[in-house]
Amino acid sequence: MFKMTALFKQPKDKEKFDEYYFNTHAPLTEKIPGLRKMTVTKIVGSPMGESEFYMQCDMYYDDFEAFKVASKTPEAKASGKDVMSFAGDIVTFMFGEEVNE
Amino acid sequence: MFKMTALFKQPKDKEKFDEYYFNTHAPLTEKIPGLRKMTVTKIVGSPMGESEFYMQCDMYYDDFEAFKVASKTPEAKASGKDVMSFAGDIVTFMFGEEVNE
Repeated sequence: MFKMTALFKQPKDKEKFDEYYFNTHAPLTEKIPGLRKMTVTKIVGSPMGESEFYMQCDMYYDDFEAFKVASKTPEAKASGKDVMSFAGDIVTFMFGEEVNE
Repeated sequence: MFKMTALFKQPKDKEKFDEYYFNTHAPLTEKIPGLRKMTVTKIVGSPMGESEFYMQCDMYYDDFEAFKVASKTPEAKASGKDVMSFAGDIVTFMFGEEVNE
């Protein structure tokens, strides 16, 4: 499967971030056609104490082609525009393929 | 579940990294008692081209307590020592909890 990952650094206001993320942003993202699964991970620390990262969201698609098709939909564009509006300064995106050893 | 994540930046020599990671490091890690699942993701790009990150490994444990117990085993210490020996300059660790909305 193809995985689109959004990795967020620590937001200035964690409560405000969570409230917006779970109540407004995630529901927008979940509407993207072709999205197979979405996993949100709260980063709760690191071996050295607080992590520089706060949250990771993994969005799964059948393959890269399916992701590219999905990316052109109004739903994906709305989600993308939304994430940049509230987290543009702290988010990094990665394209990934899970390795089956 | 509790997730211990190792996120690797781009190594200088990708072939050498892969060869060592999959043939030497991963087998050491897989021996850690209490490890429930391990997922390796190759970062194949980003919306802006090459990502600053190269690979992510997610190691799952029942909970944080189980991870702490596992961390004290010789197997975990061997894996930790090994990863620092070949990737100490490019690896970041994160502790995570998957959110069930």
